Amino acid sequence: MTAQHREAGSTDASPALADPPAIAGVGMTAFTGTADRSLLDLLFVAAERALDDAERDPADVDSVHVGNMAAEAFNDRSGLANALAGGLGLIGATARRVENTSASGASAFQSAFEAVASGRSDLALAVGGEKMSSADTATATEIISRLTHDREYEQGVTLPSLGGLAAAAYLEEHGADRRDLARVAVKNHANALANEYAQFRKRIDVDDVLDSPPIASPLRLYDCCPTTDGAAAVVIASDPEDGGVIVTACESATGTHAVADRLDPLEIESVRTAGDRAYAAAGFGPDAVDLACIHDAFSVLEWLEMEELGLAPTGGAWRLTRDGETARDGSIPVNPGGGLKARGHPLGATGIAQVVELVWQLRGDVPDERSVGRARRGLAVNVAGFGNNAVCTLLEVDA
Amino acid sequence: MTAQHREAGSTDASPALADPPAIAGVGMTAFTGTADRSLLDLLFVAAERALDDAERDPADVDSVHVGNMAAEAFNDRSGLANALAGGLGLIGATARRVENTSASGASAFQSAFEAVASGRSDLALAVGGEKMSSADTATATEIISRLTHDREYEQGVTLPSLGGLAAAAYLEEHGADRRDLARVAVKNHANALANEYAQFRKRIDVDDVLDSPPIASPLRLYDCCPTTDGAAAVVIASDPEDGGVIVTACESATGTHAVADRLDPLEIESVRTAGDRAYAAAGFGPDAVDLACIHDAFSVLEWLEMEELGLAPTGGAWRLTRDGETARDGSIPVNPGGGLKARGHPLGATGIAQVVELVWQLRGDVPDERSVGRARRGLAVNVAGFGNNAVCTLLEVDA
Repeated sequence: MTAQHREAGSTDASPALADPPAIAGVGMTAFTGTADRSLLDLLFVAAERALDDAERDPADVDSVHVGNMAAEAFNDRSGLANALAGGLGLIGATARRVENTSASGASAFQSAFEAVASGRSDLALAVGGEKMSSADTATATEIISRLTHDREYEQGVTLPSLGGLAAAAYLEEHGADRRDLARVAVKNHANALANEYAQFRKRIDVDDVLDSPPIASPLRLYDCCPTTDGAAAVVIASDPEDGGVIVTACESATGTHAVADRLDPLEIESVRTAGDRAYAAAGFGPDAVDLACIHDAFSVLEWLEMEELGLAPTGGAWRLTRDGETARDGSIPVNPGGGLKARGHPLGATGIAQVVELVWQLRGDVPDERSVGRARRGLAVNVAGFGNNAVCTLLEVDA
Repeated sequence: MTAQHREAGSTDASPALADPPAIAGVGMTAFTGTADRSLLDLLFVAAERALDDAERDPADVDSVHVGNMAAEAFNDRSGLANALAGGLGLIGATARRVENTSASGASAFQSAFEAVASGRSDLALAVGGEKMSSADTATATEIISRLTHDREYEQGVTLPSLGGLAAAAYLEEHGADRRDLARVAVKNHANALANEYAQFRKRIDVDDVLDSPPIASPLRLYDCCPTTDGAAAVVIASDPEDGGVIVTACESATGTHAVADRLDPLEIESVRTAGDRAYAAAGFGPDAVDLACIHDAFSVLEWLEMEELGLAPTGGAWRLTRDGETARDGSIPVNPGGGLKARGHPLGATGIAQVVELVWQLRGDVPDERSVGRARRGLAVNVAGFGNNAVCTLLEVDA
């Protein structure tokens, strides 16, 4: 890896796990702009695929953790966790929904991980999903914007506006140009081409990004993730299988809520803290990471988060993108499944879909044309809002 | 206690806790039909009261667990957990919202309990709240009704209709009459009279209940909890104080989701399973419980849940009510704070408000006119929907 090494262990972390939880199975629905199934059906399909993959008796699942941001507002639906548990025949299991805006999926995964790691659960099911197409654009935009600070919201702060501010500051401060930024989206679209689960399987080039409609200067449409329908699921078990994937760490942290509280617009404190905690819990640092799924809701976020996680030196992530190091065949492949940009971003599903992608890559369960090759350790980071919260997960092939 | 003893330990339970988490502080807002504060402000007030009560450095809180059902749909608000953590200055803490419909509060409490019990958190803040008055009645009814099974919803099943069916079956099967059922609401209103936090501080009698408008036969308006605004909070610590309150157990379970899956309309399987697990984890049974906060969303639920929890013999809870045994000065006081019926039921707050009430009673922190007297062990049960899920908590004075 080309990564700058950062000392791990400087922040609080959970005690190292003597018996790390194992990934027993994964599955997801195709991500799409408009699904022809209900939100609940999307969750069922993802859950059933993960349970099939797990080759365990589904009746042994003793806890259900559902990631979803806004079913009540988007889908006129409530009680997802209990409906899912009931529909799967898991009466008696514990069940809850975990919500953390755009990181709801990773928080649900974390809840399942914690249940197994603490010994409360032997077989936990984490399922995340969102059906955003059911809400009109005004409603979806409003609900998502209302995660920002009240007074800043009243003055017009939205997530794209924060993305635009950060992108402008990054380009100016670190000497990257606008075409460099476009290469993040170009790479993620290229990665999605062979991913049958991705929303966009369409190659784009730098000029396509620059010619797309402006959203929040300098960001354009193709710098931004779409609205998406989809679900993803993971089965976590207390007993690893030989050669299987284990969860080495899953840690989270809040960051500043108000823009006014940020010392530096290019810092995403939650990602740094969650990453440091995860590395400390895992006992290894960014140099040991072979591939990463990074929360690229806006192109510039891929750079900021890589830098916070020590996967690139501060101010240097753009060079890794330009030089192809973050491509599938580069030294640190980022978002090999297409990322939020091209695989899509069904809010509550994303954090779990990142884990699904890492598992497939670590197991070698993807076709050659989209494999990153032999990899032992993967990192996923899922971010709430523009850094209000972050969850960092480290997976490892048990070898 | 007059309770029928049920053998504990027949179902799975978490391992007994060598060092049970302690309640460090509690607080709540007054519950009211229409609060003049925003949902977020209600959560802040409750959190600050619990933190003041805890006499700990608020900066030491390392995890925040927010219980809320439908902020996006009711209040056009999202990202509650991060907004709360940010506003309290807890940057770096872990934070999540936990949703379990009308048991969201208890599920958030359980998440905080688990964080401390497993050693991940030293000082955890659980805050639950709902501002139902912001939604029009049609929206609130629709969102709440949509926790039922899709096909049953389409045929008109609502929570009040389930309450009506159960009430009719109970009265017929166990020989209670309609006036007996009214006594549940009369008792809970009487208990709320001296509770300055209660929504209704108005004495009612049996005829008031029978004269109130019909809702779902035989249930009338005064058999049903109101819609409420309010919040409640608890600080949980890893280090108990001498003579303080400890959390002996907090266990949950799903039950049937569809009415069609129920073998007996008078059983609430989730409550039975959660209760059995809690007793097994605590190492004591219902006979040792001195007072209880029971989820009386409908009057009949108080009876059904008492029976499932072994606090009354099957078919015998109505006699305990009639004979005054569940009154504040009875042998097993139930809902001394007024219950959901009279204290109010702000969905995401209720499960935590139950714990707050138990703590006040166990500590002797209530005026004589509403005290149950000397009590050592308290039970709270918070129910999602009409038994889709239940969370049972056992508290004990550390003596």
